Amino acid sequence: MLYLIGLGLSYETDITVRGLEVVKKCKRVYLEAYTSILMAASKESLEEFYGREVILADRELVESGSDQILENAQEDDVAFLVVGDVFGATTHTDLVIRARELGIKTEAIHNASVMNAVGACGLQLYNFGQTVSLVFFTDNWRPDSFYNKILENRRIGLHTLVLLDIKVKEQSIENMARGRLIYEPPRYMDIQTAAEQLLEIEEKRKEECYTPNTPAVAISRLGSPTQSFKAATLKELAQYDSGEPLHSLIILGRQVHDLELDYLYHYCDNPESYKQAVVADQEFFKPPPYVPPPEEEFSY
Amino acid sequence: MLYLIGLGLSYETDITVRGLEVVKKCKRVYLEAYTSILMAASKESLEEFYGREVILADRELVESGSDQILENAQEDDVAFLVVGDVFGATTHTDLVIRARELGIKTEAIHNASVMNAVGACGLQLYNFGQTVSLVFFTDNWRPDSFYNKILENRRIGLHTLVLLDIKVKEQSIENMARGRLIYEPPRYMDIQTAAEQLLEIEEKRKEECYTPNTPAVAISRLGSPTQSFKAATLKELAQYDSGEPLHSLIILGRQVHDLELDYLYHYCDNPESYKQAVVADQEFFKPPPYVPPPEEEFSY
Repeated sequence: MLYLIGLGLSYETDITVRGLEVVKKCKRVYLEAYTSILMAASKESLEEFYGREVILADRELVESGSDQILENAQEDDVAFLVVGDVFGATTHTDLVIRARELGIKTEAIHNASVMNAVGACGLQLYNFGQTVSLVFFTDNWRPDSFYNKILENRRIGLHTLVLLDIKVKEQSIENMARGRLIYEPPRYMDIQTAAEQLLEIEEKRKEECYTPNTPAVAISRLGSPTQSFKAATLKELAQYDSGEPLHSLIILGRQVHDLELDYLYHYCDNPESYKQAVVADQEFFKPPPYVPPPEEEFSY
Repeated sequence: MLYLIGLGLSYETDITVRGLEVVKKCKRVYLEAYTSILMAASKESLEEFYGREVILADRELVESGSDQILENAQEDDVAFLVVGDVFGATTHTDLVIRARELGIKTEAIHNASVMNAVGACGLQLYNFGQTVSLVFFTDNWRPDSFYNKILENRRIGLHTLVLLDIKVKEQSIENMARGRLIYEPPRYMDIQTAAEQLLEIEEKRKEECYTPNTPAVAISRLGSPTQSFKAATLKELAQYDSGEPLHSLIILGRQVHDLELDYLYHYCDNPESYKQAVVADQEFFKPPPYVPPPEEEFSY
């Protein structure tokens, strides 16, 4: 049996009781270690907590060496641990499909992921549109496909969760070219960089998807002991020191209710100016007024 | 301190290790018992598992009697348990706002909710639009506000998660009028009813938001020992026996990838006809072709 087990967001103890019971009985335990990190735990602290060896699974092992993970899992129990939820921001459906082909049963043990825990900022999950990812811009690669998606969401009044790039175990182009397995230090996009990159693309596209005054919420270290939220405009967030990773960002949509705003004001430096930004944004994106159909002409 | 603790979807042991540690040390433990149910547990089995008394909190207690829940929580630790996640389908931000007003600290301990665990069917959470709720129709109340939202999602290619009505501790109109505290047996909407209600509204509105041939996925007992998925058209689901509750439904959007479809075929009676339904739906909702702007006339 292959168990896919979500670890939640931060602590060793964020695993579910059922997940922990399964980890303890599995023959091999893999930790997916390239799409996210547990903020208040490490491989070593997990090993101590589980009383078990944990094998780090990097992208190569998961994507090309999945048969190693699945070896003899028809008979043995194997655990594949994923930060957040198993089918959250990164899905591992390819691993499940491969297991099915090999006649291996699978079971998912779910947990919180950023995709649902963002509700903690006070915005209703109901009113989120599609989620987008923002990658680190380089000198010659500044992809902006997120822009159209944010615009689609905002045109129908929805919030957008923006997931920020994480670079773990990346090689420099030089090291890659020379075949040297030397990896760069991990990098995690902060709020300031995210806001700057977003504004750069608006500056280039000029389709008024958002402006420097668009209201947003910065989510930092969600679910960790130092979790923090900051409700501010994009311009303000481009100056905001968000501290240690991980971060994500929400761009508000028009469909924000007073109760949600009351909750957000708690995270504002200046609730009054934030409210003005929300009202201006709602006004800009409000649907065109209803025009009644022309009166039919009756022939009496 | 007020702890808001997600219980996950099904088993007593779906609580996180950290959540369980907190429950054990709290002075009072409330279970929010009117917006969802744990499918493989009961109040009694939770009490046995926690070794603690659990107080059922119905809508009246939470909405009007929150001061009773928060009593002396400046000094004592109080746990408020929520099926799924704390800020999932139903948010409890009002309770947090009230706690803040009373100077009570709060902490959320997150867990899986239907809003993220639906990823288990193989569809990427990234491509979901706004979530809608479908209530039981009555003879004279057949609300269809979900229809516009599904249409908004589908126009931009997104999937829609449809949450199905749960009626717990409801009074009949007669009993309510006579002030009798007699409650109807709980009712949980099944997939058949949901598909029929959806098709009835399309029949009435005729805006081609979806048709009987629109591809969908029925999600039954997500995260429970008898979890099941069924990928079929709405017309087929209107005949589908989905078994015991809880259920939800996904209406597919155009943005479905081949890898996601490969995963879904596993849950199809007839993958070939499902694929045809997907292709026809994609064709219907495909964006208009790109028209290049008129050539500028240069004056040489």
